[in-house]
Amino acid sequence: MADAGAMARRAIGIALADIDGEVAEAMRYSTAGGKGFRAFLVSEGARLHGISNDAIAPVAGAIEAIHAYSLVHDDLPCMDDDDMRRGQLTVHRKWDEAIAVLAGDGLQTIAYQLIADADDLIADQKTDLIGSLARASGIHGMVGGQEMDIVAEKRAEPMSIDEITKLQAGKTGALITWSATAGPVLMSSDIAPLKTYGDALGLAFQIADDVLDIEGDPSATGKAVGKDEGRGKATFVSLLGLDGAKRRATELVDTAIDALHSYDENADLLRELARFAVERDR
Amino acid sequence: MADAGAMARRAIGIALADIDGEVAEAMRYSTAGGKGFRAFLVSEGARLHGISNDAIAPVAGAIEAIHAYSLVHDDLPCMDDDDMRRGQLTVHRKWDEAIAVLAGDGLQTIAYQLIADADDLIADQKTDLIGSLARASGIHGMVGGQEMDIVAEKRAEPMSIDEITKLQAGKTGALITWSATAGPVLMSSDIAPLKTYGDALGLAFQIADDVLDIEGDPSATGKAVGKDEGRGKATFVSLLGLDGAKRRATELVDTAIDALHSYDENADLLRELARFAVERDR
Repeated sequence: MADAGAMARRAIGIALADIDGEVAEAMRYSTAGGKGFRAFLVSEGARLHGISNDAIAPVAGAIEAIHAYSLVHDDLPCMDDDDMRRGQLTVHRKWDEAIAVLAGDGLQTIAYQLIADADDLIADQKTDLIGSLARASGIHGMVGGQEMDIVAEKRAEPMSIDEITKLQAGKTGALITWSATAGPVLMSSDIAPLKTYGDALGLAFQIADDVLDIEGDPSATGKAVGKDEGRGKATFVSLLGLDGAKRRATELVDTAIDALHSYDENADLLRELARFAVERDR
Repeated sequence: MADAGAMARRAIGIALADIDGEVAEAMRYSTAGGKGFRAFLVSEGARLHGISNDAIAPVAGAIEAIHAYSLVHDDLPCMDDDDMRRGQLTVHRKWDEAIAVLAGDGLQTIAYQLIADADDLIADQKTDLIGSLARASGIHGMVGGQEMDIVAEKRAEPMSIDEITKLQAGKTGALITWSATAGPVLMSSDIAPLKTYGDALGLAFQIADDVLDIEGDPSATGKAVGKDEGRGKATFVSLLGLDGAKRRATELVDTAIDALHSYDENADLLRELARFAVERDR
Protein backbone atom coordinates (compact mmCIF):
# COMPACT_ATOMS: atom_id res chain seq x y z
CA MET A 1 0.00 0.00 0.00
CA ALA A 2 2.93 2.30 0.79
CA ASP A 3 4.23 1.82 -2.77
CA ALA A 4 0.92 2.88 -4.31
CA GLY A 5 0.82 5.92 -2.04
CA ALA A 6 4.37 6.83 -3.08
CA MET A 7 3.43 6.40 -6.74
CA ALA A 8 0.46 8.75 -6.26
CA ARG A 9 2.63 11.33 -4.48
CA ARG A 10 5.22 11.20 -7.27
CA ALA A 11 2.50 11.89 -9.86
CA ILE A 12 1.20 14.84 -7.82
CA GLY A 13 4.76 16.04 -7.24
CA ILE A 14 5.51 16.07 -10.97
CA ALA A 15 2.39 18.11 -11.67
CA LEU A 16 3.44 20.59 -8.94
CA ALA A 17 7.15 20.55 -9.82
CA ASP A 18 7.48 24.12 -11.05
CA ILE A 19 5.19 25.74 -8.46
CA ASP A 20 6.39 27.74 -5.45
CA GLY A 21 4.34 29.33 -2.73
CA GLU A 22 2.26 28.35 0.28
CA VAL A 23 -0.70 26.89 -1.60
CA ALA A 24 1.51 24.46 -3.53
CA GLU A 25 3.35 23.66 -0.28
CA ALA A 26 0.02 22.99 1.44
CA MET A 27 -1.02 20.78 -1.50
CA ARG A 28 2.16 18.69 -1.10
CA TYR A 29 1.80 18.66 2.70
CA SER A 30 -1.78 17.40 2.62
CA THR A 31 -0.96 14.58 0.22
CA ALA A 32 2.22 13.51 2.05
CA GLY A 33 0.94 11.55 5.01
CA GLY A 34 -1.86 9.37 3.70
CA LYS A 35 -1.96 5.60 3.75
CA GLY A 36 -2.43 5.49 -0.02
CA PHE A 37 -5.48 3.28 0.46
CA ARG A 38 -7.32 4.59 -2.64
CA ALA A 39 -4.16 4.61 -4.78
CA PHE A 40 -3.60 0.98 -3.81
CA LEU A 41 -7.16 0.08 -4.86
CA VAL A 42 -6.60 1.80 -8.21
CA SER A 43 -3.28 0.05 -8.69
CA GLU A 44 -4.55 -3.43 -7.77
CA GLY A 45 -7.83 -3.14 -9.71
CA ALA A 46 -5.83 -2.02 -12.74
CA ARG A 47 -3.29 -4.84 -12.37
CA LEU A 48 -6.13 -7.39 -12.35
CA HIS A 49 -7.15 -5.98 -15.74
CA GLY A 50 -3.65 -6.00 -17.23
CA ILE A 51 -2.83 -2.32 -16.76
CA SER A 52 0.70 -1.43 -15.66
CA ASN A 53 1.56 0.77 -12.69
CA ASP A 54 3.25 3.25 -15.05
CA ALA A 55 0.02 3.72 -16.96
CA ILE A 56 -2.09 4.03 -13.85
CA ALA A 57 0.21 6.32 -11.79
CA PRO A 58 -1.55 9.59 -12.80
CA VAL A 59 -4.91 8.00 -11.90
CA ALA A 60 -3.56 7.00 -8.49
CA GLY A 61 -2.31 10.57 -8.08
CA ALA A 62 -5.72 11.90 -9.07
CA ILE A 63 -7.68 9.89 -6.51
CA GLU A 64 -5.28 10.77 -3.69
CA ALA A 65 -5.51 14.46 -4.71
CA ILE A 66 -9.33 14.30 -4.61
CA HIS A 67 -9.21 12.53 -1.24
CA ALA A 68 -6.77 15.11 0.16
CA TYR A 69 -8.90 18.01 -1.13
CA SER A 70 -11.94 16.56 0.63
CA LEU A 71 -10.03 16.24 3.91
CA VAL A 72 -8.57 19.76 3.75
CA HIS A 73 -12.01 21.29 3.18
CA ASP A 74 -13.75 18.93 5.62
CA ASP A 75 -11.30 19.96 8.36
CA LEU A 76 -12.16 23.68 7.99
CA PRO A 77 -13.70 25.45 11.01
CA CYS A 78 -17.04 25.81 9.18
CA MET A 79 -17.11 22.06 8.50
CA ASP A 80 -15.68 19.54 11.02
CA ASP A 81 -13.27 22.03 12.62
CA ASP A 82 -10.36 19.64 13.10
CA ASP A 83 -6.91 20.66 14.30
CA MET A 84 -5.10 17.41 13.61
CA ARG A 85 -5.07 15.07 10.62
CA ARG A 86 -2.79 12.11 10.03
CA GLY A 87 -0.81 13.10 13.13
CA GLN A 88 0.01 16.59 11.90
CA LEU A 89 -1.68 19.98 12.02
CA THR A 90 -4.52 20.44 9.54
CA VAL A 91 -3.79 22.84 6.68
CA HIS A 92 -5.87 25.72 8.07
CA ARG A 93 -4.11 25.36 11.44
CA LYS A 94 -0.61 25.18 9.94
CA TRP A 95 -1.31 28.01 7.48
CA ASP A 96 -4.74 29.66 7.51
CA GLU A 97 -8.26 29.15 6.19
CA ALA A 98 -7.67 30.97 2.90
CA ILE A 99 -4.69 28.74 2.10
CA ALA A 100 -6.78 25.69 3.03
CA VAL A 101 -9.65 26.72 0.74
CA LEU A 102 -7.24 27.34 -2.14
CA ALA A 103 -5.15 24.21 -1.53
CA GLY A 104 -8.31 22.09 -1.56
CA ASP A 105 -9.53 23.81 -4.72
CA GLY A 106 -6.15 23.31 -6.40
CA LEU A 107 -6.00 19.65 -5.38
CA GLN A 108 -9.39 18.99 -6.95
CA THR A 109 -8.24 20.69 -10.15
CA ILE A 110 -4.95 18.82 -10.37
CA ALA A 111 -6.78 15.49 -10.17
CA TYR A 112 -8.51 16.18 -13.49
CA GLN A 113 -5.30 17.61 -14.95
CA LEU A 114 -3.39 14.44 -14.04
CA ILE A 115 -5.90 12.19 -15.81
CA ALA A 116 -6.29 14.48 -18.84
CA ASP A 117 -2.50 14.62 -19.27
CA ALA A 118 -1.81 10.90 -18.62
CA ASP A 119 0.70 9.69 -21.21
CA ASP A 120 -0.28 6.03 -21.40
CA LEU A 121 -4.08 6.29 -21.58
CA ILE A 122 -6.15 7.01 -24.66
CA ALA A 123 -8.71 9.81 -24.74
CA ASP A 124 -11.73 7.50 -24.39
CA GLN A 125 -10.25 5.97 -21.25
CA LYS A 126 -9.55 9.41 -19.81
CA THR A 127 -13.07 10.74 -20.40
CA ASP A 128 -14.62 7.59 -18.88
CA LEU A 129 -12.48 8.03 -15.78
CA ILE A 130 -13.05 11.79 -15.55
CA GLY A 131 -16.82 11.50 -15.94
CA SER A 132 -17.10 8.76 -13.35
CA LEU A 133 -14.71 10.53 -10.95
CA ALA A 134 -16.79 13.71 -11.20
CA ARG A 135 -19.99 11.80 -10.44
CA ALA A 136 -18.36 9.95 -7.52
CA SER A 137 -16.83 13.08 -5.97
CA GLY A 138 -19.38 15.83 -6.67
CA ILE A 139 -22.93 16.62 -5.60
CA HIS A 140 -23.98 13.17 -6.91
CA GLY A 141 -21.44 11.48 -4.62
CA MET A 142 -18.99 12.73 -2.00
CA VAL A 143 -20.17 16.36 -1.80
CA GLY A 144 -23.76 15.07 -1.55
CA GLY A 145 -22.72 12.84 1.36
CA GLN A 146 -20.95 15.73 3.08
CA GLU A 147 -24.16 17.75 2.82
CA MET A 148 -26.14 14.91 4.45
CA ASP A 149 -23.57 14.99 7.25
CA ILE A 150 -24.12 18.72 7.82
CA VAL A 151 -27.91 18.39 7.67
CA ALA A 152 -27.80 15.54 10.19
CA GLU A 153 -25.69 17.58 12.61
CA LYS A 154 -28.21 20.41 12.56
CA ARG A 155 -31.34 18.40 13.29
CA ALA A 156 -32.46 17.15 16.69
CA GLU A 157 -33.05 13.40 16.14
CA PRO A 158 -30.04 11.18 15.37
CA MET A 159 -29.72 9.45 11.99
CA SER A 160 -31.14 6.00 11.38
CA ILE A 161 -28.91 3.15 10.21
CA ASP A 162 -30.31 3.55 6.66
CA GLU A 163 -29.52 7.26 6.66
CA ILE A 164 -26.00 6.85 7.98
CA THR A 165 -25.38 4.07 5.44
CA LYS A 166 -26.56 6.31 2.59
CA LEU A 167 -24.47 9.19 3.94
CA GLN A 168 -21.37 7.00 4.05
CA ALA A 169 -22.01 5.63 0.55
CA GLY A 170 -21.73 9.19 -0.71
CA LYS A 171 -19.20 10.76 1.62
CA THR A 172 -16.54 8.04 1.56
CA GLY A 173 -17.98 5.04 -0.32
CA ALA A 174 -18.30 6.50 -3.82
CA LEU A 175 -14.58 7.29 -4.15
CA ILE A 176 -13.52 3.93 -2.72
CA THR A 177 -15.72 2.13 -5.25
CA TRP A 178 -14.46 4.42 -8.01
CA SER A 179 -10.89 3.49 -7.05
CA ALA A 180 -11.60 -0.23 -7.03
CA THR A 181 -13.37 -0.10 -10.41
CA ALA A 182 -10.98 2.21 -12.30
CA GLY A 183 -9.23 -0.84 -13.82
CA PRO A 184 -12.33 -2.44 -15.41
CA VAL A 185 -13.65 1.02 -16.40
CA LEU A 186 -10.38 1.64 -18.28
CA MET A 187 -10.68 -1.69 -20.14
CA SER A 188 -14.47 -1.46 -20.64
CA SER A 189 -14.70 -4.73 -18.70
CA ASP A 190 -17.40 -5.85 -16.24
CA ILE A 191 -17.17 -3.64 -13.15
CA ALA A 192 -19.63 -5.71 -11.06
CA PRO A 193 -17.16 -7.79 -8.99
CA LEU A 194 -14.97 -4.84 -8.03
CA LYS A 195 -18.04 -2.63 -7.49
CA THR A 196 -19.44 -5.12 -4.97
CA TYR A 197 -15.99 -5.34 -3.40
CA GLY A 198 -15.60 -1.54 -3.25
CA ASP A 199 -19.09 -0.89 -1.88
CA ALA A 200 -18.66 -3.46 0.91
CA LEU A 201 -15.08 -2.41 1.66
CA GLY A 202 -16.01 1.28 1.84
CA LEU A 203 -18.76 0.65 4.34
CA ALA A 204 -16.57 -1.71 6.39
CA PHE A 205 -13.83 0.91 6.40
CA GLN A 206 -16.20 3.58 7.72
CA ILE A 207 -17.57 1.30 10.44
CA ALA A 208 -13.98 0.51 11.44
CA ASP A 209 -13.33 4.27 11.58
CA ASP A 210 -16.21 4.69 14.00
CA VAL A 211 -14.84 1.84 16.11
CA LEU A 212 -11.39 3.48 16.09
CA ASP A 213 -13.01 6.73 17.24
CA ILE A 214 -13.95 4.85 20.44
CA GLU A 215 -11.13 2.35 20.85
CA GLY A 216 -8.27 3.92 18.91
CA ASP A 217 -4.96 5.10 20.27
CA PRO A 218 -4.65 8.81 19.38
CA SER A 219 -0.90 8.41 18.86
CA ALA A 220 -1.67 5.83 16.15
CA THR A 221 -4.80 7.35 14.58
CA GLY A 222 -3.31 10.86 14.66
CA LYS A 223 -6.57 12.35 15.86
CA ALA A 224 -8.51 12.76 19.09
CA VAL A 225 -10.51 9.79 20.39
CA GLY A 226 -14.21 9.97 21.28
CA LYS A 227 -14.66 13.10 19.15
CA ASP A 228 -17.76 11.95 17.27
CA GLU A 229 -19.25 10.54 20.46
CA GLY A 230 -18.55 13.78 22.33
CA ARG A 231 -20.52 15.66 19.69
CA GLY A 232 -23.57 13.42 20.12
CA LYS A 233 -23.19 12.43 16.47
CA ALA A 234 -24.85 9.18 15.36
CA THR A 235 -22.23 6.65 14.28
CA PHE A 236 -22.34 2.98 13.38
CA VAL A 237 -21.16 2.31 16.94
CA SER A 238 -23.88 4.41 18.56
CA LEU A 239 -26.51 2.69 16.39
CA LEU A 240 -25.25 -0.91 16.43
CA GLY A 241 -23.18 -0.97 19.62
CA LEU A 242 -19.46 -1.72 19.65
CA ASP A 243 -19.85 -5.49 19.17
CA GLY A 244 -22.65 -5.07 16.61
CA ALA A 245 -20.55 -2.63 14.61
CA LYS A 246 -17.54 -4.95 14.63
CA ARG A 247 -19.74 -7.88 13.56
CA ARG A 248 -21.25 -5.85 10.72
CA ALA A 249 -17.78 -4.81 9.53
CA THR A 250 -16.63 -8.43 9.52
CA GLU A 251 -19.69 -9.50 7.48
CA LEU A 252 -18.95 -6.77 4.96
CA VAL A 253 -15.32 -7.89 4.68
CA ASP A 254 -16.63 -11.40 3.88
CA THR A 255 -18.92 -9.93 1.20
CA ALA A 256 -16.01 -7.99 -0.26
CA ILE A 257 -13.74 -11.04 -0.33
CA ASP A 258 -16.45 -13.28 -1.83
CA ALA A 259 -16.93 -10.81 -4.70
CA LEU A 260 -13.34 -11.41 -5.81
CA HIS A 261 -13.66 -15.16 -6.54
CA SER A 262 -13.41 -14.75 -10.35
CA TYR A 263 -9.96 -13.19 -9.95
CA ASP A 264 -8.54 -16.28 -8.16
CA GLU A 265 -5.34 -15.78 -6.19
CA ASN A 266 -4.48 -12.71 -8.29
CA ALA A 267 -6.73 -10.74 -5.96
CA ASP A 268 -5.04 -11.87 -2.74
CA LEU A 269 -3.71 -8.39 -2.01
CA LEU A 270 -7.24 -6.98 -2.28
CA ARG A 271 -8.42 -9.70 0.10
CA GLU A 272 -5.67 -8.75 2.52
CA LEU A 273 -6.63 -5.09 2.22
CA ALA A 274 -10.24 -5.89 3.10
CA ARG A 275 -9.11 -7.71 6.24
CA PHE A 276 -6.75 -4.86 7.07
CA ALA A 277 -9.62 -2.35 6.76
CA VAL A 278 -11.21 -3.67 9.93
CA GLU A 279 -8.09 -4.80 11.78
CA ARG A 280 -6.05 -1.60 11.42
CA ASP A 281 -5.24 0.59 14.42
CA ARG A 282 -5.24 3.92 12.57
CA MET B 1 -24.46 37.46 -24.30
CA ALA B 2 -27.68 36.74 -22.38
CA ASP B 3 -28.35 33.79 -24.72
CA ALA B 4 -24.96 32.24 -24.03
CA GLY B 5 -25.50 32.68 -20.31
CA ALA B 6 -28.91 31.00 -20.57
CA MET B 7 -27.36 28.16 -22.57
CA ALA B 8 -24.74 27.66 -19.86
CA ARG B 9 -27.38 27.69 -17.11
CA ARG B 10 -29.47 25.11 -18.98
CA ALA B 11 -26.47 22.80 -19.23
CA ILE B 12 -25.77 23.19 -15.49
CA GLY B 13 -29.49 22.77 -14.74
CA ILE B 14 -29.64 19.47 -16.63
CA ALA B 15 -26.64 18.13 -14.73
CA LEU B 16 -28.32 19.12 -11.44
CA ALA B 17 -31.83 18.08 -12.47
CA ASP B 18 -32.28 15.18 -10.07
CA ILE B 19 -30.60 16.78 -7.06
CA ASP B 20 -32.42 18.27 -4.05
CA GLY B 21 -30.97 20.01 -1.04
CA GLU B 22 -29.32 23.26 -0.10
CA VAL B 23 -25.98 22.65 -1.81
CA ALA B 24 -27.63 22.03 -5.19
CA GLU B 25 -29.87 25.04 -4.58
CA ALA B 26 -26.81 27.16 -3.81
CA MET B 27 -25.12 25.84 -6.97
CA ARG B 28 -28.12 26.95 -9.08
CA TYR B 29 -28.36 30.26 -7.20
CA SER B 30 -24.72 31.15 -7.75
CA THR B 31 -24.87 30.42 -11.48
CA ALA B 32 -28.20 32.25 -12.00
CA GLY B 33 -27.23 35.90 -12.05
CA GLY B 34 -24.06 36.11 -14.14
CA LYS B 35 -23.63 38.06 -17.35
CA GLY B 36 -22.58 34.92 -19.21
CA PHE B 37 -19.43 36.71 -20.38
CA ARG B 38 -17.29 33.57 -20.47
CA ALA B 39 -20.05 31.42 -21.99
CA PHE B 40 -20.41 34.03 -24.73
CA LEU B 41 -16.67 33.89 -25.46
CA VAL B 42 -16.85 30.10 -25.68
CA SER B 43 -19.88 30.27 -27.96
CA GLU B 44 -18.46 32.93 -30.30
CA GLY B 45 -14.97 31.41 -30.48
CA ALA B 46 -16.57 28.06 -31.29
CA ARG B 47 -18.87 29.55 -33.94
CA LEU B 48 -15.83 31.10 -35.67
CA HIS B 49 -14.45 27.58 -35.96
CA GLY B 50 -17.64 26.00 -37.25
CA ILE B 51 -18.87 24.47 -33.97
CA SER B 52 -22.59 24.67 -33.20
CA ASN B 53 -24.11 26.02 -30.00
CA ASP B 54 -25.62 22.60 -29.28
CA ALA B 55 -22.20 21.01 -29.33
CA ILE B 56 -20.62 23.72 -27.19
CA ALA B 57 -23.42 24.13 -24.59
CA PRO B 58 -21.82 21.79 -22.00
CA VAL B 59 -18.51 23.66 -22.41
CA ALA B 60 -20.29 26.98 -21.82
CA GLY B 61 -21.90 25.42 -18.74
CA ALA B 62 -18.51 24.21 -17.55
CA ILE B 63 -16.80 27.60 -17.72
CA GLU B 64 -19.69 29.36 -15.97
CA ALA B 65 -19.63 26.66 -13.27
CA ILE B 66 -15.88 27.18 -12.76
CA HIS B 67 -16.36 30.95 -12.66
CA ALA B 68 -19.22 30.64 -10.14
CA TYR B 69 -17.17 28.27 -7.94
CA SER B 70 -14.32 30.79 -7.88
CA LEU B 71 -16.70 33.60 -6.84
CA VAL B 72 -18.43 31.55 -4.12
CA HIS B 73 -15.09 30.60 -2.55
CA ASP B 74 -13.55 34.05 -3.12
CA ASP B 75 -16.49 35.68 -1.28
CA LEU B 76 -15.91 33.56 1.86
CA PRO B 77 -15.04 35.41 5.10
CA CYS B 78 -11.51 33.95 5.05
CA MET B 79 -10.99 35.26 1.50
CA ASP B 80 -12.54 38.56 0.32
CA ASP B 81 -15.40 38.46 2.86
CA ASP B 82 -18.12 39.84 0.59
CA ASP B 83 -21.80 40.03 1.51
CA MET B 84 -23.17 40.92 -1.92
CA ARG B 85 -22.50 39.50 -5.36
CA ARG B 86 -24.40 40.29 -8.55
CA GLY B 87 -26.93 42.28 -6.52
CA GLN B 88 -27.85 39.40 -4.24
CA LEU B 89 -26.52 37.94 -1.00
CA THR B 90 -23.38 35.83 -1.36
CA VAL B 91 -23.86 32.09 -0.78
CA HIS B 92 -22.29 32.02 2.68
CA ARG B 93 -24.51 34.94 3.73
CA LYS B 94 -27.71 33.44 2.31
CA TRP B 95 -26.90 29.97 3.66
CA ASP B 96 -23.69 29.48 5.63
CA GLU B 97 -19.97 28.91 5.10
CA ALA B 98 -20.19 25.13 4.97
CA ILE B 99 -22.81 25.28 2.20
CA ALA B 100 -20.61 27.80 0.35
CA VAL B 101 -17.53 25.58 0.57
CA LEU B 102 -19.49 22.55 -0.66
CA ALA B 103 -21.37 24.46 -3.38
CA GLY B 104 -18.06 25.79 -4.74
CA ASP B 105 -16.53 22.32 -4.59
CA GLY B 106 -19.55 20.82 -6.36
CA LEU B 107 -19.50 23.52 -9.04
CA GLN B 108 -15.88 22.81 -9.84
CA THR B 109 -16.66 19.09 -10.12
CA ILE B 110 -19.69 19.55 -12.34
CA ALA B 111 -17.62 21.55 -14.82
CA TYR B 112 -15.47 18.49 -15.57
CA GLN B 113 -18.53 16.24 -15.55
CA LEU B 114 -20.25 18.45 -18.13
CA ILE B 115 -17.31 18.27 -20.53
CA ALA B 116 -16.67 14.55 -19.97
CA ASP B 117 -20.34 13.77 -20.66
CA ALA B 118 -20.77 16.15 -23.64
CA ASP B 119 -22.73 14.29 -26.34
CA ASP B 120 -21.40 16.06 -29.43
CA LEU B 121 -17.68 16.12 -28.70
CA ILE B 122 -15.22 13.30 -29.24
CA ALA B 123 -12.95 12.06 -26.48
CA ASP B 124 -9.83 13.78 -27.85
CA GLN B 125 -11.64 17.12 -27.85
CA LYS B 126 -12.84 16.57 -24.30
CA THR B 127 -9.41 15.71 -22.91
CA ASP B 128 -7.84 18.73 -24.65
CA LEU B 129 -10.46 20.99 -23.07
CA ILE B 130 -10.27 19.36 -19.65
CA GLY B 131 -6.48 19.50 -19.51
CA SER B 132 -6.37 23.14 -20.55
CA LEU B 133 -9.25 24.09 -18.24
CA ALA B 134 -7.47 22.48 -15.30
CA ARG B 135 -4.26 24.37 -16.07
CA ALA B 136 -6.15 27.67 -16.49
CA SER B 137 -8.17 27.29 -13.29
CA GLY B 138 -5.81 25.53 -10.88
CA ILE B 139 -2.56 26.37 -9.12
CA HIS B 140 -1.00 27.08 -12.55
CA GLY B 141 -3.72 29.69 -13.30
CA MET B 142 -6.64 31.08 -11.32
CA VAL B 143 -5.84 29.53 -7.93
CA GLY B 144 -2.24 30.72 -8.36
CA GLY B 145 -3.52 34.24 -9.03
CA GLN B 146 -5.77 34.13 -5.97
CA GLU B 147 -2.77 33.16 -3.88
CA MET B 148 -0.81 36.16 -5.21
CA ASP B 149 -3.77 38.32 -4.18
CA ILE B 150 -3.66 37.00 -0.62
CA VAL B 151 0.12 37.36 -0.38
CA ALA B 152 -0.12 40.95 -1.63
CA GLU B 153 -2.76 41.84 0.97
CA LYS B 154 -0.53 40.58 3.77
CA ARG B 155 2.62 42.48 2.89
CA ALA B 156 3.36 46.13 3.63
CA GLU B 157 4.36 47.57 0.24
CA PRO B 158 1.72 47.79 -2.52
CA MET B 159 2.06 45.71 -5.69
CA SER B 160 3.89 47.03 -8.75
CA ILE B 161 2.15 47.26 -12.11
CA ASP B 162 4.03 44.13 -13.26
CA GLU B 163 2.91 42.21 -10.20
CA ILE B 164 -0.74 43.22 -10.47
CA THR B 165 -0.70 42.38 -14.19
CA LYS B 166 0.70 38.93 -13.45
CA LEU B 167 -1.83 38.46 -10.64
CA GLN B 168 -4.70 39.38 -12.96
CA ALA B 169 -3.40 37.11 -15.73
CA GLY B 170 -3.82 34.19 -13.32
CA LYS B 171 -6.81 35.19 -11.24
CA THR B 172 -9.17 36.26 -14.04
CA GLY B 173 -7.20 36.29 -17.30
CA ALA B 174 -6.47 32.57 -17.68
CA LEU B 175 -10.14 31.55 -17.74
CA ILE B 176 -11.09 34.37 -20.12
CA THR B 177 -8.37 33.30 -22.55
CA TRP B 178 -9.39 29.66 -22.11
CA SER B 179 -12.98 30.63 -23.01
CA ALA B 180 -11.94 32.57 -26.09
CA THR B 181 -9.68 29.76 -27.33
CA ALA B 182 -11.97 26.78 -26.63
CA GLY B 183 -13.15 26.84 -30.27
CA PRO B 184 -9.73 26.54 -31.96
CA VAL B 185 -8.59 24.08 -29.23
CA LEU B 186 -11.56 21.86 -30.14
CA MET B 187 -10.68 21.97 -33.84
CA SER B 188 -6.90 21.74 -33.29
CA SER B 189 -6.66 25.09 -35.13
CA ASP B 190 -4.28 27.99 -34.49
CA ILE B 191 -5.18 29.52 -31.12
CA ALA B 192 -2.90 32.57 -31.52
CA PRO B 193 -5.48 35.19 -32.69
CA LEU B 194 -8.04 34.33 -30.02
CA LYS B 195 -5.31 33.97 -27.39
CA THR B 196 -4.09 37.50 -28.09
CA TYR B 197 -7.71 38.65 -28.05
CA GLY B 198 -8.48 36.85 -24.76
CA ASP B 199 -5.30 38.01 -22.99
CA ALA B 200 -5.92 41.66 -23.92
CA LEU B 201 -9.65 41.46 -23.21
CA GLY B 202 -9.11 39.85 -19.80
CA LEU B 203 -6.72 42.57 -18.71
CA ALA B 204 -8.97 45.33 -20.10
CA PHE B 205 -11.92 43.77 -18.28
CA GLN B 206 -10.03 43.79 -14.96
CA ILE B 207 -8.90 47.38 -15.38
CA ALA B 208 -12.51 48.34 -16.14
CA ASP B 209 -13.51 46.52 -12.94
CA ASP B 210 -11.08 48.65 -10.95
CA VAL B 211 -12.50 51.78 -12.62
CA LEU B 212 -16.03 50.63 -11.74
CA ASP B 213 -14.92 50.14 -8.14
CA ILE B 214 -14.31 53.92 -8.05
CA GLU B 215 -16.90 55.28 -10.46
CA GLY B 216 -19.57 52.57 -10.50
CA ASP B 217 -23.15 52.85 -9.33
CA PRO B 218 -23.63 50.17 -6.62
CA SER B 219 -27.22 49.61 -7.79
CA ALA B 220 -25.80 48.65 -11.21
CA THR B 221 -22.62 46.78 -10.19
CA GLY B 222 -24.39 44.98 -7.36
CA LYS B 223 -21.49 45.55 -5.00
CA ALA B 224 -20.15 48.29 -2.78
CA VAL B 225 -18.12 51.07 -4.39
CA GLY B 226 -14.64 52.09 -3.23
CA LYS B 227 -14.15 48.77 -1.49
CA ASP B 228 -10.71 47.98 -2.88
CA GLU B 229 -9.60 51.55 -2.33
CA GLY B 230 -10.90 51.48 1.25
CA ARG B 231 -8.72 48.44 1.93
CA GLY B 232 -5.59 50.22 0.66
CA LYS B 233 -5.29 47.52 -2.00
CA ALA B 234 -3.20 48.34 -5.08
CA THR B 235 -5.39 48.43 -8.19
CA PHE B 236 -4.79 49.51 -11.78
CA VAL B 237 -6.44 52.81 -10.82
CA SER B 238 -4.20 53.40 -7.78
CA LEU B 239 -1.13 52.61 -9.91
CA LEU B 240 -2.04 54.33 -13.18
CA GLY B 241 -4.55 56.96 -12.04
CA LEU B 242 -8.15 57.01 -13.24
CA ASP B 243 -7.33 58.52 -16.65
CA GLY B 244 -4.24 56.36 -17.10
CA ALA B 245 -6.22 53.22 -16.29
CA LYS B 246 -8.96 54.14 -18.75
CA ARG B 247 -6.36 54.87 -21.43
CA ARG B 248 -4.64 51.52 -20.82
CA ALA B 249 -7.97 49.68 -21.04
CA THR B 250 -8.75 51.40 -24.36
CA GLU B 251 -5.33 50.43 -25.77
CA LEU B 252 -5.94 46.83 -24.75
CA VAL B 253 -9.35 46.84 -26.44
CA ASP B 254 -7.62 48.01 -29.63
CA THR B 255 -5.10 45.18 -29.31
CA ALA B 256 -7.93 42.69 -28.78
CA ILE B 257 -9.85 43.96 -31.82
CA ASP B 258 -6.75 44.02 -34.05
CA ALA B 259 -6.08 40.37 -33.23
CA LEU B 260 -9.38 39.38 -34.85
CA HIS B 261 -8.60 40.65 -38.37
CA SER B 262 -8.29 37.18 -39.92
CA TYR B 263 -11.89 36.43 -38.92
CA ASP B 264 -13.29 39.40 -40.94
CA GLU B 265 -16.80 40.54 -40.04
CA ASN B 266 -17.59 37.13 -38.56
CA ALA B 267 -15.91 38.35 -35.40
CA ASP B 268 -17.98 41.52 -35.06
CA LEU B 269 -19.73 40.29 -31.93
CA LEU B 270 -16.34 39.66 -30.30
CA ARG B 271 -15.29 43.19 -31.30
CA GLU B 272 -18.46 44.54 -29.73
CA LEU B 273 -17.80 42.54 -26.58
CA ALA B 274 -14.31 44.03 -26.29
CA ARG B 275 -15.76 47.55 -26.49
CA PHE B 276 -18.46 46.61 -24.00
CA ALA B 277 -15.82 45.34 -21.55
CA VAL B 278 -14.60 48.88 -20.91
CA GLU B 279 -17.87 50.76 -21.47
CA ARG B 280 -20.11 48.67 -19.21
CA ASP B 281 -21.55 50.07 -16.00
CA ARG B 282 -21.56 46.78 -14.08
